[in-house]
Amino acid sequence: MLIEDRLKELKEKINAKVPAGINVSEVEFEGPELVIYTDDPKKFADEADLIKVLARDLRKRIVVRPNVLEDPEIAATKIKAVVSEGAGITDMFFDPDTGEVLIEAEKPGVVIGKNGTTLRDITKEIGWTPKVVRTPPIESSTVKQTRQFLRAVKDERKAFLRSIGRRIHRDLTSKDKWVRVTTLGCCREVGRAAFLLSTPESKILIDCGDKPGSSDGFPYLYVPEIFPLKSLDAVVLTHAHLDHCALVPMLYKYGFEGPVYSTPATRDLAVMLQLDYLDVVANEVNQVPYSSKEVQEYIKRSITLNYGSVTDIAPDIKLTYHNAGHILGSAIAHFHIGDGQYNIAFTGDFNYGKTRLFGPATSQFPRLEAVFMESTYGGSEDNQPSKNDAESRLYEIVNETINRGGKIIIPAFAVGRSQEVMLALEEGMRLEKIPKVKVYLDGMIKEATAIHTTYPEYLNPDLRKQIFQEGMNPFLSECFVQVDSPKIREEVIGSDPCIIITTSGMLNGGPVMEYLYALAPYEKNTLIFVGYQADGTIGRRIQKGWKEVPMGRRETIVLNLQIETVDGFSGHSDRRQLMAYVNHLNPRPEKIFTIHGDEKNTIDLASSIYKRFRIETHSPKNLETYRML
Amino acid sequence: MLIEDRLKELKEKINAKVPAGINVSEVEFEGPELVIYTDDPKKFADEADLIKVLARDLRKRIVVRPNVLEDPEIAATKIKAVVSEGAGITDMFFDPDTGEVLIEAEKPGVVIGKNGTTLRDITKEIGWTPKVVRTPPIESSTVKQTRQFLRAVKDERKAFLRSIGRRIHRDLTSKDKWVRVTTLGCCREVGRAAFLLSTPESKILIDCGDKPGSSDGFPYLYVPEIFPLKSLDAVVLTHAHLDHCALVPMLYKYGFEGPVYSTPATRDLAVMLQLDYLDVVANEVNQVPYSSKEVQEYIKRSITLNYGSVTDIAPDIKLTYHNAGHILGSAIAHFHIGDGQYNIAFTGDFNYGKTRLFGPATSQFPRLEAVFMESTYGGSEDNQPSKNDAESRLYEIVNETINRGGKIIIPAFAVGRSQEVMLALEEGMRLEKIPKVKVYLDGMIKEATAIHTTYPEYLNPDLRKQIFQEGMNPFLSECFVQVDSPKIREEVIGSDPCIIITTSGMLNGGPVMEYLYALAPYEKNTLIFVGYQADGTIGRRIQKGWKEVPMGRRETIVLNLQIETVDGFSGHSDRRQLMAYVNHLNPRPEKIFTIHGDEKNTIDLASSIYKRFRIETHSPKNLETYRML
Repeated sequence: MLIEDRLKELKEKINAKVPAGINVSEVEFEGPELVIYTDDPKKFADEADLIKVLARDLRKRIVVRPNVLEDPEIAATKIKAVVSEGAGITDMFFDPDTGEVLIEAEKPGVVIGKNGTTLRDITKEIGWTPKVVRTPPIESSTVKQTRQFLRAVKDERKAFLRSIGRRIHRDLTSKDKWVRVTTLGCCREVGRAAFLLSTPESKILIDCGDKPGSSDGFPYLYVPEIFPLKSLDAVVLTHAHLDHCALVPMLYKYGFEGPVYSTPATRDLAVMLQLDYLDVVANEVNQVPYSSKEVQEYIKRSITLNYGSVTDIAPDIKLTYHNAGHILGSAIAHFHIGDGQYNIAFTGDFNYGKTRLFGPATSQFPRLEAVFMESTYGGSEDNQPSKNDAESRLYEIVNETINRGGKIIIPAFAVGRSQEVMLALEEGMRLEKIPKVKVYLDGMIKEATAIHTTYPEYLNPDLRKQIFQEGMNPFLSECFVQVDSPKIREEVIGSDPCIIITTSGMLNGGPVMEYLYALAPYEKNTLIFVGYQADGTIGRRIQKGWKEVPMGRRETIVLNLQIETVDGFSGHSDRRQLMAYVNHLNPRPEKIFTIHGDEKNTIDLASSIYKRFRIETHSPKNLETYRML
Repeated sequence: MLIEDRLKELKEKINAKVPAGINVSEVEFEGPELVIYTDDPKKFADEADLIKVLARDLRKRIVVRPNVLEDPEIAATKIKAVVSEGAGITDMFFDPDTGEVLIEAEKPGVVIGKNGTTLRDITKEIGWTPKVVRTPPIESSTVKQTRQFLRAVKDERKAFLRSIGRRIHRDLTSKDKWVRVTTLGCCREVGRAAFLLSTPESKILIDCGDKPGSSDGFPYLYVPEIFPLKSLDAVVLTHAHLDHCALVPMLYKYGFEGPVYSTPATRDLAVMLQLDYLDVVANEVNQVPYSSKEVQEYIKRSITLNYGSVTDIAPDIKLTYHNAGHILGSAIAHFHIGDGQYNIAFTGDFNYGKTRLFGPATSQFPRLEAVFMESTYGGSEDNQPSKNDAESRLYEIVNETINRGGKIIIPAFAVGRSQEVMLALEEGMRLEKIPKVKVYLDGMIKEATAIHTTYPEYLNPDLRKQIFQEGMNPFLSECFVQVDSPKIREEVIGSDPCIIITTSGMLNGGPVMEYLYALAPYEKNTLIFVGYQADGTIGRRIQKGWKEVPMGRRETIVLNLQIETVDGFSGHSDRRQLMAYVNHLNPRPEKIFTIHGDEKNTIDLASSIYKRFRIETHSPKNLETYRML
């Protein structure tokens, strides 16, 4: 059926269900959504269940948008006129994708007004639907700039979303039914995640990362399975770590034209990390695989989805994200293929334990035939201490080092481990388990933390409660000091005993190298690893016992300081949790593929899962294709 | 290195090795060969070891060709002038690929002359190198027409071979080393053989057949792995049966431009069967997937190789054919990848037993890491009686049927089973084990037999000896009568007790259906299956006990005649032979993939091989990709 005919049919169906007096002027696919344009958005909103009923009956995600949206500048003025100054409005973000205006205010209650009266007044004045959130306590320049950019390119983006919408809702053409997964990286290794999910109708790339510690660690993006890149329907990101998303902008350089799906938090973290990646690569005098222009291209074509939202991303594939518990916005990507034919989950990196930041990964799915599961700690010996034991051990080392007048370097990914360790240190000081020393944050850790406070809905309920109901945001503790110039870095190095949390997490570049260079010669100082160190990284070499490591091309760092590894802060499930996760998976899948782990670990985990649960397992190699159905 | 520079370098190396006085005017890649053009082909020929030494040192197949080749018409006249009429020259084939002229003569000795004097005289007169063969006792129109066509397009073909030669000898470009095989058909099923062997440098398609008994049994040629078709370096055929070669011409319709490798016998049989396939498909009112124009395209781009000839077919892949014992010209395709990196053999269909026609399949290879092995009779119960037992049983049924005044229908592939059964029947009559009745051959059996007599070098030594030394060619026995008109067919049906060998072998169309329609209602007649009946074919249904089968769209054949299956004539290895083959494989491969068999059989064979030999086995599905290295 022609797409125009399909839209006409949908419009007729909608008109038949909409009460008399509500006008439906246009119906259009925009990205994965069916947008209903109307002169009466308020009447639509008043019919509480109408949108739900339409969504269920039409099996589409429905958005209602007014025909006329006030110009954002004018609308902003009108909002400010309606809301009293005491609300402390700090920013407004007009999202042309949704017709919503996000009002950030220090006192959201004032914007809403008693029984929502003020909000209703706003709605009357402008076409936009107001949503109110508390102003994030730390401002993220990434979030701000991304939102500004999206506003600047809104017309282009709208055209893009319409073309994608039509592509998603194209007719099925093949008589064949099959589902395949091709491994383009991340098999029997950690890093360069990239998996191609294909059917006779569609091609989806899941993640597209680099490989830390490898000079040319790109996924196998040159194989014919994925070419031409414009044949890809979509890229689906599980989370924002660079080994999963670093090379997404590069795809646009080589012909990809489609959308990149992720959670909103993943999008903002990914943009931050990609821009930093470009700096790091440029500094290492490697060829930069793309420029900030392609990062903008990525932003322009990103489509964000929240957990649990079932979304058409291709004519025969629906995507639903579920919490993965790994980092902010991290998700298990669940694909529902065909008419219930086949369901595959890609866990991405996931944590089946509860952490200070996040709840455990989802193990319950409506349907599930196959799982691609990370195996970072998949070896039979790879059990981690409990969070409590890990934190006690961290406190012990901090106390010993500070007591002998030393400084502590904690290399950490800007996103994930840093915030987890920050929360542990803040509590340690608050409860007087460790001395109240300064905790310096270098690299992008502050910006990453700001993004965390922008998306509190992704944090676990305890932390959310602490922040919002108890008004005690641990990220705002005065022990945390941002290092944002070489001068301050010098001062930190020469200062009193302190703790330095800094990137990169595996010592392959970043400010951590400068701290190490200055502090490593002294026995009183301590280097504490709190995260996974991949093969080939300097972090892994130090863990293996190297006493000297290179810094750049000419200099050498002599390691006299204490080297400690505190396991248990990992954002990954350990072996016990991986097995428990499989045990709790519901429904039980027919096949499990162990990926994202050293060769030994993926094989060990696959074999153990088969032995214990009698589920068919595979430990794929890169560049293989598995037939699912 | 530029190809011109490489040729220049090769020319210098050759000049350094060639004795003074022999001129080397040009060196050029033509197809897989390095052609040395010279004014002195005879001097070159006199230096017996020179070409061998050059081939070994340069690691190339070397052909020496005179700068000036006499026009074939004039050369033919000159040859006829030199050779006495008593030689009985029946045909001459000037092969511009090799600069050879093939002289077919009833008395080859006369053409050669005492101590080769006449041959030397010919060489002096013309530039062409004469080769003399005995005139095939039955003329094949396919062979004749193919040779004529190749002569007609010789300039175009030369340009093609030069471009292919340059493509084969291009530089390696990738830093990666990997070897993959993608299954495009023939996995857990019999038919539509198509395997893609790929490296970062090259893509080779092995076989490209249809699926008998299936209306849309094409391999999965639409997947991105194989696109665009012009990215394929070559197609490599194992043998001429349609489930391995039917769709090769179609590839040219969709953009393939490269060469198709096969043995010479396979090429001629394939052309014969493809043209017949077009007729059959057209009669069944299906859409014809290609026309005879594409068959010509195939002939134009075919490159023939003999067993044992190690040949560059891509910058990092060498192909060597070995006897497969299945049908005339059938070959195991052995691929040597990279600099000894990896070696894979595709058995195609193979017979590890000796038959009346062929020797057993080769099990010895210089190197061997992986084998893709057919599993037609791979089930643990799939043992076949010995040839002797099979023939005794055939004689028994023939005697019973003839004695009660019945006729015998033997459906058989035109190529393979027909000739095997012909030889058994001829001997049966000669040794008076069965009565001397007429054996009618309908369909392409006579033409196929003619091609057999054109290539006696592929027959086993006993049969060759019988034909050439004992002068008793069993194919010429007067018991065999060709049916070449509907009128004769009518006569056969109304005639005395007799034996009818006719196509198609699985009763999916062909003249066999007419015989069956006329003879099946009578209990005195017998239908004898001597070959494998694939799922979905009428042959398989009759074996399963159906008492009525459809003929075309409207009519029904009632089966009252006797139904017999005589196992043991198969061109395939039975289960015992498959296991013995693996046992004798030398060197022992690391991996065996069981293909070309029902799902049950491929899995059973894979599992048994693993259990007995501890070799890693896989029973792949279609549309999978396996990483070899």
